[in-house]
Amino acid sequence: MESEPTDLDWLDAAAALAGRGRPRSSPNPAVGCILVKDGVVVGRGWTQPGGRPHAEAQALGMAGPDARGAVAYVTLEPCAHRSDRGPSCADLLVEAAPARVVVAQTDPDPRTDGEGIERLKRAGITVDYCDSIAARRSLDGFLTLQRFNRPHVTLKLAMSLDGCIALPDGESQWITGEEARAHVHSRRAMADAILVGGGTWRKDLPRLTVRLPGLEERSPQRVVLTRGVPIDGVKIINTPAQICTLERTQYLYVEGGAQTGASFLAEDLVDRLEIYRAPIVIGKGMPSLGDIGLTDLAGAHGRWRLVERRQLGSDCYEAYERIRD
Amino acid sequence: MESEPTDLDWLDAAAALAGRGRPRSSPNPAVGCILVKDGVVVGRGWTQPGGRPHAEAQALGMAGPDARGAVAYVTLEPCAHRSDRGPSCADLLVEAAPARVVVAQTDPDPRTDGEGIERLKRAGITVDYCDSIAARRSLDGFLTLQRFNRPHVTLKLAMSLDGCIALPDGESQWITGEEARAHVHSRRAMADAILVGGGTWRKDLPRLTVRLPGLEERSPQRVVLTRGVPIDGVKIINTPAQICTLERTQYLYVEGGAQTGASFLAEDLVDRLEIYRAPIVIGKGMPSLGDIGLTDLAGAHGRWRLVERRQLGSDCYEAYERIRD
Repeated sequence: MESEPTDLDWLDAAAALAGRGRPRSSPNPAVGCILVKDGVVVGRGWTQPGGRPHAEAQALGMAGPDARGAVAYVTLEPCAHRSDRGPSCADLLVEAAPARVVVAQTDPDPRTDGEGIERLKRAGITVDYCDSIAARRSLDGFLTLQRFNRPHVTLKLAMSLDGCIALPDGESQWITGEEARAHVHSRRAMADAILVGGGTWRKDLPRLTVRLPGLEERSPQRVVLTRGVPIDGVKIINTPAQICTLERTQYLYVEGGAQTGASFLAEDLVDRLEIYRAPIVIGKGMPSLGDIGLTDLAGAHGRWRLVERRQLGSDCYEAYERIRD
Repeated sequence: MESEPTDLDWLDAAAALAGRGRPRSSPNPAVGCILVKDGVVVGRGWTQPGGRPHAEAQALGMAGPDARGAVAYVTLEPCAHRSDRGPSCADLLVEAAPARVVVAQTDPDPRTDGEGIERLKRAGITVDYCDSIAARRSLDGFLTLQRFNRPHVTLKLAMSLDGCIALPDGESQWITGEEARAHVHSRRAMADAILVGGGTWRKDLPRLTVRLPGLEERSPQRVVLTRGVPIDGVKIINTPAQICTLERTQYLYVEGGAQTGASFLAEDLVDRLEIYRAPIVIGKGMPSLGDIGLTDLAGAHGRWRLVERRQLGSDCYEAYERIRD
């Protein structure tokens, strides 16, 4: 017998909806919301392109009068601030009068920061918290910006079994197969900006576009890390720390090369590692990373947690998250 | 409803029994045998230390008169040659009179080479073939010796996510965790001989022993690849090709370093890669392999097939087999 979905199940589902808003919800976080009444979904929504409408407004609009007495699952605390683009989600919820709101994350934005939840409580709505890892991960970009004042950084590496990204002469096409390369394009489509080093830019002239049918419009802002001359249509930064100057960027996808990846790692600016590993051996090729400033092995441990592993054709894809307190 | 085991299921089980004979069956192959009557196992056996008794003799001895009319599953064709240590397994089977014998692999040894099966057929016993990958793999050492006149070679690599086996200063203790290191010891216990390069020998003075409770006696013959001076208690070879001179060696386990591993790969003498990968990033450390003579990426593809992947604590263990026609 299948058991009823739990609060966590519903929040995980709301997090999956939130993913549909990434990255186009920028500058707002991609939030997901599900309204459930008597075990049936009566409304759902996610943050729309440009940041409005919010997920709750979408879901409430779908539910109409059915929202009364329902349970609202939201990945992030409903906003408490009215903007010129519409009323706050807390006010909308109070008006719609669900019986209960379940929240995965509180909103550190000073304009909300607990006030959204307080307003619900004052209106007699029960508020519960439930920690969903999926919900937290769906807010990575927003939470990283709030905490560190910089985008969430994913470093992509495509390598052989022995950790090489090219032959000694630089030949690197192709190490991974078609499935892996298509997956990279889908990951680009999830980023606000994509970055390579000046060396890679000059050597490979990468297009850095999303070349997946239907997603061509989702190609992110291109950024090059270089001390060299400006490049048309490309944002230039001189140091990894300058990623904090990237506008409207919650998610930054770093594609290399080895020195660029290492420079981000050396400054502890990588939040997620995504590795594509092909079942080939190169031997004495170009290493995947340059110097990251590591001085002893003890310091290398306890920093990365495997969060996903899957096979893409004959290649293996692994994602690791930086473990932070 | 569970279905009856198939011939392949029984052969896979016989292959698992055969594994108990590795590597102490040397100089004989490690064979497994199961006798099944009316769906019940009435006898089982595997090649005993030193090579005798054979698996079939063990299984028939256990079954006694129950062998008559049973089905015998053997991973390798029963031997046809009488030795001074006893009668051939083909003759023993004819005498025991099972109704059917299912064989996974024919025995290329010229003293058998089909004659074992012919003898069974002449006695009116049905003989069926069934290709079991597990059975074939359990005979890797024997089949490699027969085909290439050299031991089966496993190359072990323990590395970081970015393919480094040490810091630039050589620090390598530890990259992998306790579970992975214990697993390495269990793999040593499955080898007849273990090899390191002269550089690793001089630098690390590795003990190369099996340090698992109850398996201390299973430490394999130590071999060093070097052009240097003889070492007490250690067999010396000067080139990878000289592994064909190793006596009583079906399974050779190569533990490094990077140049030694590369020299075996360069001569296409590696049959199995076993990789332990720790969730750490080193960056600009010592690469896991030296030059293997690769000149283009196309030549690197299609050589390795993933056959096992499992988590060992926080490390990942992967085994790849060399794809050969």
